[in-house]
Amino acid sequence: MPKTIAINAGSSSLKWQLYEMPAEKVIAKGIVERIGLKDSIFTIKYGEDQKYEETMDINDHEVAVKMLLDKLIELGILASYDEITGVGHRIVQGGKYYDQSVIIDDDVLHKIEELADFAPLHNPANLMGIRAFKELLPDVTNVAVFDTAFHANMPESNARYSIPKEYREKYDLRKYGAHGTSHRYVAERAAEVLGRPIEELKIITCHLGNGASITAVENGQSVDTSMGFTPLAGVTMGTRSGDVDPAILQYLMHKLNIDIDEMLNILNKKSGLLGLTGISSDMRDLEDKLDNEDVKIALDIFTDRIRKYIGSYVTTMNGVDAIVFTAGIGENDANVRADVINGMSWFGCEIDPDKNNVRGEEKVISTDDSKVKVLLVPTDEELVIARDVESLRKNS
Amino acid sequence: MPKTIAINAGSSSLKWQLYEMPAEKVIAKGIVERIGLKDSIFTIKYGEDQKYEETMDINDHEVAVKMLLDKLIELGILASYDEITGVGHRIVQGGKYYDQSVIIDDDVLHKIEELADFAPLHNPANLMGIRAFKELLPDVTNVAVFDTAFHANMPESNARYSIPKEYREKYDLRKYGAHGTSHRYVAERAAEVLGRPIEELKIITCHLGNGASITAVENGQSVDTSMGFTPLAGVTMGTRSGDVDPAILQYLMHKLNIDIDEMLNILNKKSGLLGLTGISSDMRDLEDKLDNEDVKIALDIFTDRIRKYIGSYVTTMNGVDAIVFTAGIGENDANVRADVINGMSWFGCEIDPDKNNVRGEEKVISTDDSKVKVLLVPTDEELVIARDVESLRKNS
Repeated sequence: MPKTIAINAGSSSLKWQLYEMPAEKVIAKGIVERIGLKDSIFTIKYGEDQKYEETMDINDHEVAVKMLLDKLIELGILASYDEITGVGHRIVQGGKYYDQSVIIDDDVLHKIEELADFAPLHNPANLMGIRAFKELLPDVTNVAVFDTAFHANMPESNARYSIPKEYREKYDLRKYGAHGTSHRYVAERAAEVLGRPIEELKIITCHLGNGASITAVENGQSVDTSMGFTPLAGVTMGTRSGDVDPAILQYLMHKLNIDIDEMLNILNKKSGLLGLTGISSDMRDLEDKLDNEDVKIALDIFTDRIRKYIGSYVTTMNGVDAIVFTAGIGENDANVRADVINGMSWFGCEIDPDKNNVRGEEKVISTDDSKVKVLLVPTDEELVIARDVESLRKNS
Repeated sequence: MPKTIAINAGSSSLKWQLYEMPAEKVIAKGIVERIGLKDSIFTIKYGEDQKYEETMDINDHEVAVKMLLDKLIELGILASYDEITGVGHRIVQGGKYYDQSVIIDDDVLHKIEELADFAPLHNPANLMGIRAFKELLPDVTNVAVFDTAFHANMPESNARYSIPKEYREKYDLRKYGAHGTSHRYVAERAAEVLGRPIEELKIITCHLGNGASITAVENGQSVDTSMGFTPLAGVTMGTRSGDVDPAILQYLMHKLNIDIDEMLNILNKKSGLLGLTGISSDMRDLEDKLDNEDVKIALDIFTDRIRKYIGSYVTTMNGVDAIVFTAGIGENDANVRADVINGMSWFGCEIDPDKNNVRGEEKVISTDDSKVKVLLVPTDEELVIARDVESLRKNS
């Protein structure tokens, strides 16, 4: 049976998941960390709780992929390379070019490279993953699955910034959003769970992880999303500020005597929950420190900002049928879900505390009477990648 | 009878309105423009449509005020300087110090000066107005009425930015908002018109002029507002961008090779409706150009962003009883009011096209069945200033 690998390559990491298709069964998964550094860590999980781990120096992504393929054979997970029929790559930025997944040819490679201008930390890393597989498995279909694709067709009035037209046009400045694969997947699952065609539904999806974004999904399409030109915009995140008055940048740059790159580094890496509390970017480290006033306010800010985006997207769609929570915090933190929903009872949504007392399970968590349905849907971006690979491979 | 002057001093202008109190009757008003430039323009309107206008060089605010006082006597509007019992000054930035109007003493003067750091274009200009009156009418009560005061007690979770704690504390970085005097006035009038105590109402006030801001008013208090640390944040305005992904600043600064001050100048002066259309910052110039695609999208953006803030503030208060429109566009543009409200019928608000077909009149413009009431309330910041002056003068 054909096997597909879903790849998420970072600048010093390579996360992967091996699927047997069309069964959609995960037969192995793993991660290579610290690529290019001393003591890289190579991990595979497979079978019934089996695990292989090795620490050694892995110089680049090609070495990592070679090692991965060899180990898959060595451990008996694959009989030969030929079993791999497709490789899917998560690509952060697809810009104006891609509103769906595509088979990677030279033109696609070139465009992903060009778009690195918009995603300087991510697209080049994604490219390293692609090049490694192309080198080692030259005859296998490689597919690019873009984080931005789901948002690419939102109404122009939602995508456009109120900045001078000439800059917008010359530099392709617009809202690209992110987490599109996740928003698309959980919206589709939510419609399934509710037993209604997605074309009839107005859904607001809340992807709440270390990065977090809220998306309005109408008729199965993203019509607006809280992340912007980059993943910095929107709600308060682990280390990212989300929306701030742009004048703050000017004020702080003068006060601190720093340049714009340093300023953006502060907003991306040292702000959000970490900046507000001075303690941690991780919700789990904060929730038992509510006697600390800054922590209490930070958690209020976290849920308030989510609620505000939900409220604004109810206006975008002039209604809402379902609100969906997903990703690390969304799937595992019942308090956050309850806080968000309890604060908007006026909208006709009510959470059921018993149903909400759950982690990572696909289910409705609102009361039976709730006018707006609230759901928990674990996300599965890797599965979407594997499916897109199979579907493009078969049709190519 | 006591007479009070309400002053709005800009860097090269001085707008004023003379009230007879407690009758609250405007007996004269006017503006001095191009102060410090060649051919300054001095205008007074008084009596039944009478107008006095003169063009001459007016070197500074003190000369402007001296000329104003002399002309008031010359034209028979005042018998002597002694009739003026109070002067009220609109001050843009009251920072963390002021949550209500105050009599201006040396300490207040010093604080307004100190706060110029937050409002470099406005507070120093406001100070010129104060100093001119203090010099010429040394025994008269001068009162500062702050644009920020109404917002000063909003919940900390709404005022706080998700930036590092140390910068927030060291530099008093928070949401200060603006247009507070207007939001306070129209919210109070809306409660009067509805015949309900303001303490029972959840009101969203939309001050839509060349600058625009939306405020959530609960229990008579501002609990959140769309302008931020400065008046740049929030909705799309005439020339201001409103909210943008802060990463856009970094991107454009590198592309255009400009510094942060130039970047902020673009966002404050060349963006908004002007930037989006390349045609005009004035709604009235745009509404008959709807065959231009950029204009059409710009007007959609203008109303969408307002609607989104309204939706987000419905979550902030977990409900809304009334939505109020005011200021130049809010009072005069029936299309904008209709577009905003028609797009949120799900919230239970419905505009009555006949009632809405009106300019600058205090009235309910929603249908009788509308669950959320919609009102038009002409703002009157000068009147609030005159009232605050009288009330502080009497109690001092």
